[in-house]
Amino acid sequence: MSQKTVKIGLIGLGTVGAGVAKILLEESGQILQKTGLNIELARIVDKDIKSQRPVKLPKGMLTKNLDALINDKSIDIAVELVGGTGFAKDLHIKLLESGKHVVTANKALLAEHGNELYRVARKNNTCIAFEASCAGGIPIISAIRTGLAANKIEAIYGIVNGTCNYILTNMTKKGLSFKAALKKAQQKGFAEADPTLDINGHDSAHKLVIMASFAFGYEFKIEDVHIEGIESISIDDIRYAEELGYVLKLLAIAKNETDGTISLRVHPSFLHKECALARVDGSFNAVSIFGSAVGQTMFYGRGAGMMPTASAVVSDIIDVALGNSVTTFNSLKLKGRSEIESKIGNIQTLTKRFYIRLMAKDEPGVFSKYSKILGDNNISISGALQHEGTGPENTVPVVITTHPTKQENIDKAIKQLTKATFISGKPVCIRIVDIPEDNID
Amino acid sequence: MSQKTVKIGLIGLGTVGAGVAKILLEESGQILQKTGLNIELARIVDKDIKSQRPVKLPKGMLTKNLDALINDKSIDIAVELVGGTGFAKDLHIKLLESGKHVVTANKALLAEHGNELYRVARKNNTCIAFEASCAGGIPIISAIRTGLAANKIEAIYGIVNGTCNYILTNMTKKGLSFKAALKKAQQKGFAEADPTLDINGHDSAHKLVIMASFAFGYEFKIEDVHIEGIESISIDDIRYAEELGYVLKLLAIAKNETDGTISLRVHPSFLHKECALARVDGSFNAVSIFGSAVGQTMFYGRGAGMMPTASAVVSDIIDVALGNSVTTFNSLKLKGRSEIESKIGNIQTLTKRFYIRLMAKDEPGVFSKYSKILGDNNISISGALQHEGTGPENTVPVVITTHPTKQENIDKAIKQLTKATFISGKPVCIRIVDIPEDNID
Repeated sequence: MSQKTVKIGLIGLGTVGAGVAKILLEESGQILQKTGLNIELARIVDKDIKSQRPVKLPKGMLTKNLDALINDKSIDIAVELVGGTGFAKDLHIKLLESGKHVVTANKALLAEHGNELYRVARKNNTCIAFEASCAGGIPIISAIRTGLAANKIEAIYGIVNGTCNYILTNMTKKGLSFKAALKKAQQKGFAEADPTLDINGHDSAHKLVIMASFAFGYEFKIEDVHIEGIESISIDDIRYAEELGYVLKLLAIAKNETDGTISLRVHPSFLHKECALARVDGSFNAVSIFGSAVGQTMFYGRGAGMMPTASAVVSDIIDVALGNSVTTFNSLKLKGRSEIESKIGNIQTLTKRFYIRLMAKDEPGVFSKYSKILGDNNISISGALQHEGTGPENTVPVVITTHPTKQENIDKAIKQLTKATFISGKPVCIRIVDIPEDNID
Repeated sequence: MSQKTVKIGLIGLGTVGAGVAKILLEESGQILQKTGLNIELARIVDKDIKSQRPVKLPKGMLTKNLDALINDKSIDIAVELVGGTGFAKDLHIKLLESGKHVVTANKALLAEHGNELYRVARKNNTCIAFEASCAGGIPIISAIRTGLAANKIEAIYGIVNGTCNYILTNMTKKGLSFKAALKKAQQKGFAEADPTLDINGHDSAHKLVIMASFAFGYEFKIEDVHIEGIESISIDDIRYAEELGYVLKLLAIAKNETDGTISLRVHPSFLHKECALARVDGSFNAVSIFGSAVGQTMFYGRGAGMMPTASAVVSDIIDVALGNSVTTFNSLKLKGRSEIESKIGNIQTLTKRFYIRLMAKDEPGVFSKYSKILGDNNISISGALQHEGTGPENTVPVVITTHPTKQENIDKAIKQLTKATFISGKPVCIRIVDIPEDNID
């Protein structure tokens, strides 16, 4: 077997960057033996060259000199791990124009400017590889583009934000409040000091745009995604839904709807407790993909963290070095925006199931009053739960699950219920997602 | 994007073959749009050209003329779906020597003659692609070779035989006997008329040899695998173990053991009920892979059937047509037999946990007698369960789980217990497999 030497330049020596450096420096022998590739980490650039990192670097490898890396013609592959969408975008363009392939974990950048960057890459006969941008160590991009290539993708359901899943698992299994669960996630290192992008659903939406673009073959944008986060989830609703057999997850969904549109959405979702995704706990990620030939699949693993994400980055480096990523990248064509507009579903017209919780005044006739409002709006009740005992201000919590209902009907009913004198405050409304599990019998 | 036309010859128009023909004939437009590949099914060969198939073929495409296919220089990729290890082996050699790449689902052939065939392929600058040989539609070979390429693989735990999993699920969840569950599997089309290779564990072993060879980098053979099937599993043991929190699965395991050896084994395995693989039911397959960087992953989907397996075959065709499979195939080197002999673990020296069920005479002093035999053989009891009431011939079933114990100690104890006058019949002994789940807290 012939050997091939490939030189790597790494930009950004944070947590994941240090993991990548560690694998490239410590496992190069193993990689050479397995693949015939002599992968050589040549340069590392970071603005901080002083802090201790959990990897021992050869002297002089780490510098602040980004231009030297960009201008180094001997470097074949650049690994961008600086994050963000401003500086990183310019950097990608410079690297691609200098003839380097780029490996990245930067989901925000690709979700917002990916289509432009893919064009720059194609123009320069280079490629962008981004396995690490979605679901950490889980090889989901490879599954979508290669392993399931024979399929028309029908739906993607993903738990792709480890921070949110860790928080929801701790609320569900340990009874912590949202605030306490978030604090624990931060203490354990699963949540950033500023967790906004995670808990408001935008991080999941970034990953969804990337997965859905290559699964469905369209240049999707972040604006195509309906996004709701988990900031206002109450432990009460997790408990009531548990009694009805549901578990709460933040799902990223891309789906061929029955009306011919593709819906892209991130929102808190009640899943039936027996469903495979409902059992994905802690900081784990999982993505369930439904294909026309393969049926249901699920891919499960660590969605973040130093080594799992580094695993995906280095696997990409190997695939780029072999030449496969370039071929795959060039073979995949996404349909442009002009073909997309009519395909994007409007969440207002989708017909789905809902969980509604209202605090009703504990007095005669109330039951018939709120159920009349639901009926008047064409909402059919599937299940209901009203415990004895009172909430604040002589109210009782009433929990209702609906049959499939149009979003606009639900919105109208919630508006009327919020105004009603026999209801205290605004009702809580959370979507129920019925994942079509394949029959096991 | 330029178009590339690739011609396919399909040999074997059984269930999976018909699925492959269906996708190639009906989805070629979609594949062209997605990948730029114009994949053209040119010839189909089968000895039966009369039976109705669930796909409409162009006139003249299906013939009995195998030589015409082999000698057709315009065919780039041959798909072998005839199965078996005799005729199929010669066929592979002829196809590879005629310069064709071969895509196959034939696990028995690759497990028994793969190493020889890989050499023939390399010599002829062709490749063999075999995603469909393991776990049906789940892209597990791609995950091992590409998606997790940065990792040293530490262990593979697979539920890779849908027939066995369907039978065990029906025994566990519906209380069916082994015989009744097998009959149901045959009626539903999940088990062959002759299910021997499935239920005796050999089919799982074939798949394990293929997965482990590429995960660990050795030319493993079927003789390296310790194989036990599920033929003698009794519903009683499934029920007793359930009380202790265990679920029975037929697992295929390849693992770096603590003594530096790699163990390859297929055997009935009690898994803790909370473990992800314990929840894989019906004819579904799942493979959990532990990598040095990525930690725990799991890949889940349909392990057999017309369209899921066809999904894997056609995904392979696309990857071969793009040129990626050839690159990956050529880059992977397996260490030869001379380097393997000392690496293969001997199951006799492995230290694992066990479930033992014995039918003890219901008389004073018996408890101390059998527990003395266990103690004398250095077997430490972890859990025990003895229900009141009697079995046949005034016996009671006693269920014991052990702490980690050497196989040879267990074998000695079972031999002594079988001879003992206070025990009726031969005790049942089934391994407990503790899968190191990553901490979710």
